[in-house]
Amino acid sequence: MELGLLYSGGKDSTLAALLLDDFYDVTLVTGHFGVTDDWEHAKAAAESVGFAHERIELDEAAARDAVEKMVADGFPRNGIQAVHEHALERLAAEGFDAIADGTRRDDRVPTVSRAQAQSLEDRHDVDYISPLSGFGRGAVDRLVDSALSVTVGPSEDIPRADYEAELRVLLREEHGEGAVAEVFPAHDQTYVEGPR
Amino acid sequence: MELGLLYSGGKDSTLAALLLDDFYDVTLVTGHFGVTDDWEHAKAAAESVGFAHERIELDEAAARDAVEKMVADGFPRNGIQAVHEHALERLAAEGFDAIADGTRRDDRVPTVSRAQAQSLEDRHDVDYISPLSGFGRGAVDRLVDSALSVTVGPSEDIPRADYEAELRVLLREEHGEGAVAEVFPAHDQTYVEGPR
Repeated sequence: MELGLLYSGGKDSTLAALLLDDFYDVTLVTGHFGVTDDWEHAKAAAESVGFAHERIELDEAAARDAVEKMVADGFPRNGIQAVHEHALERLAAEGFDAIADGTRRDDRVPTVSRAQAQSLEDRHDVDYISPLSGFGRGAVDRLVDSALSVTVGPSEDIPRADYEAELRVLLREEHGEGAVAEVFPAHDQTYVEGPR
Repeated sequence: MELGLLYSGGKDSTLAALLLDDFYDVTLVTGHFGVTDDWEHAKAAAESVGFAHERIELDEAAARDAVEKMVADGFPRNGIQAVHEHALERLAAEGFDAIADGTRRDDRVPTVSRAQAQSLEDRHDVDYISPLSGFGRGAVDRLVDSALSVTVGPSEDIPRADYEAELRVLLREEHGEGAVAEVFPAHDQTYVEGPR
């Protein structure tokens, strides 16, 4: 069975891929708004762990809507959630037997409720799988430590390809550097360099 | 890392074990109230798929409480839930680094909420993992079809070792055969005979 997994190059989506690898033909798929070339970091990370990689085009209007939502809110959560839902809809239309992402049990955002999952499955005739949703933060960290070589650093310095890098650029363009600092408080991200 | 997985011999808990097998030293653990020898079916299923198996003693008083709850309710859900929570508490105290069960995204019972999971983890210093909670019914069925040889049949005819067999015996003892038919409507169960 062919499975497409939304992939950022970070530890969560990489671990999700490893969990599914015995059961599906996994392709790592990175959504791309056409704003930056950050998807190339995800491609490199995918190659470092030996998975096939594809890029899918997302709708730049969805990114611009998300940026306006984040500025209005003063925090990124709802914007990130909207972009993730957009990416899942696009991925679900790609013809895979199953689609997946790296959302964890303890994540605040993005989240995919059981009702959203069933709606995706019914509308697109696809299985939606969130292999980390039964793992807490501690369990994920321990598995990553044992399986992957990872770089950790401040979000703006780590090369990866979640939606954040492209959203930061659009936010800076529309609202200036101060808006970026206001919406995205400093936090650490990870980038997978390969198997341990 | 040593992981103990609550095991009935059915397809869900067997698939959960296979998902975790690359990442943990998995022992399949069957809870046993001392009422019947049905745990032996789970041991045989565990051997057929090549996993270590252990039995843990559960508290017969918990089973008797569950039976009274089911009779009062007229359906088994809350009684089964209470017994599952009791079994997880016992398993969490066994000294494994992580514990797990076969609960699925679409299960109505038993369920383990995020708050219950975090409480188990905090009180027992253990990771609680539900590897199938990110998989819907269709995805589980397709993975089982591809990985396992399974017998399906009416619940009362299938040899397995969830709590149901022992609860049925106690229910019959206390309230008669009619109470069993009333509380447990006819439904099919599965028993794993080995890898496909």
